[in-house]
Amino acid sequence: MIGVDVGGTKILAGVVGAEGVVERHRELPTPLESQAALVDGLEAAVRAVLDEDIAAVGFGIPSRVDQRTGRVEGRAVNVPLGGIELPKLMSERLGLPVAIENDANAATLAEFVAGAGRDVRSLIVLTLGTGCGGGAVLDGALFRGWAEFGHMVIVEGGEPCFGTCTGRGHLEAYVSGSAATRDAQRAFGPAADAHRLVRLAQEGDQEAVAILDRIGRHLGTGIGSLVNLFDPELVVIGGGFAAAGDFILGPAAEVARVEALDPAADRIRIVRAELGTMAGLIGAGLIAFEAAA
Amino acid sequence: MIGVDVGGTKILAGVVGAEGVVERHRELPTPLESQAALVDGLEAAVRAVLDEDIAAVGFGIPSRVDQRTGRVEGRAVNVPLGGIELPKLMSERLGLPVAIENDANAATLAEFVAGAGRDVRSLIVLTLGTGCGGGAVLDGALFRGWAEFGHMVIVEGGEPCFGTCTGRGHLEAYVSGSAATRDAQRAFGPAADAHRLVRLAQEGDQEAVAILDRIGRHLGTGIGSLVNLFDPELVVIGGGFAAAGDFILGPAAEVARVEALDPAADRIRIVRAELGTMAGLIGAGLIAFEAAA
Repeated sequence: MIGVDVGGTKILAGVVGAEGVVERHRELPTPLESQAALVDGLEAAVRAVLDEDIAAVGFGIPSRVDQRTGRVEGRAVNVPLGGIELPKLMSERLGLPVAIENDANAATLAEFVAGAGRDVRSLIVLTLGTGCGGGAVLDGALFRGWAEFGHMVIVEGGEPCFGTCTGRGHLEAYVSGSAATRDAQRAFGPAADAHRLVRLAQEGDQEAVAILDRIGRHLGTGIGSLVNLFDPELVVIGGGFAAAGDFILGPAAEVARVEALDPAADRIRIVRAELGTMAGLIGAGLIAFEAAA
Repeated sequence: MIGVDVGGTKILAGVVGAEGVVERHRELPTPLESQAALVDGLEAAVRAVLDEDIAAVGFGIPSRVDQRTGRVEGRAVNVPLGGIELPKLMSERLGLPVAIENDANAATLAEFVAGAGRDVRSLIVLTLGTGCGGGAVLDGALFRGWAEFGHMVIVEGGEPCFGTCTGRGHLEAYVSGSAATRDAQRAFGPAADAHRLVRLAQEGDQEAVAILDRIGRHLGTGIGSLVNLFDPELVVIGGGFAAAGDFILGPAAEVARVEALDPAADRIRIVRAELGTMAGLIGAGLIAFEAAA
């Protein structure tokens, strides 16, 4: 199968086996001028790795997906994609079955099949990057709903959300890389960002440690809520800002145990994702198996 | 099928048809002395409506259920039930297939099949009673996870939760009947409760209206979060405190639209449940169809 991870700067396309192994992959810049240019770019990315053995293609896109219609809903984050039935369109262009999923849902499936969750039957994933994405596998099956975990309110009337979201106090506004950059800039000036915040903490800067602790506690609030909804065996934290590691995961676990209902409080396990930047591509490839079935 | 709704003061048992029609039902007091007495009481309630046409029995219980094992998890609210495999036990006693579900999940299925959600394919239900229960139907199927929507954090570090929950700022601590009673007592003294609060608002008391408005806004926060997770066609509000009607549903809709992601913000529909106190019994009966299959 071919999996395609559609990002704001690059498109990753690769050939993915049933166990989530990537056989080969290519990286192309994302055309951002128009939706037509982007769709051409997606086709080109697929053709760059296509051969006659490929039975289907899966796309992971930074947008919500209505699985009933295959429609890309709302506006995709950072890419000109919205309101089109991408599976139908790409299937006509490629002459192959096509499936699509939200990129965070795809990454969740990848961690379940080939990453940190390979030994469990249920998990939730939170991806801390520019935004905060999420996904769940329940009783062995990917939850195909929106799963926009980053847009749960955790602080009523709190920090405004990023991008086009009109909400306040959403998890994303506290635990994403963008939120960490905002907090770092408030403390250390306009040149600081999430990376520098983590580096400062690693060097022993107590203010940086305290900021990450606070971020971790917000993360724990979100995890506690999600545990009460989904009761997962495992909570997986991915995305670039997961590099903050135990500076955020320690306090997160502590708070999650207080907010989670009995008996989940005693058994919550929070770990880091294993597949890194390849999770989206692998997940998109795994989604394709479904289109081929 | 027989459905049994296990409440803190009474057990409702009834014969339920495939479309959720209750053919006959009985009400017995809930034995609260011990788990053994309660289990005897459940058997007696079933036998009170049992005849030879019954193929299976479903129980709706005020506790979390691990559907992998059939185990009643944590401690049930208000009834001495916990740590037992109720389906196995009752099946041996009754000589019939037995299924169990959380009572709010059962009520959700009932509203989907026979109540406010009969014309949609997906919905979420929030039940505002002593606590705040929740459930979801997604693409025509009941979500069998915990779905403890009342235990999402909406105000970090906020009001302490009720009962044995150690969390703070959970939805239940703001929108349940118990929360309304607490707010009413703060405003109108120890004799006030949720019923009086609603009555005062209906009589035009501006302080009561303002309190219900605030509760409704908290409810809207929770609904917004849930919409971002599940993207339901319909949001159904049930339970005794749903009697507050538009005093809470109006502000709830307003806030939910701000917190929900595009395009859900434009299409959220919030309505009142239709099955009242029979929802749990009907849902338990519908769960039984699954055990019989």
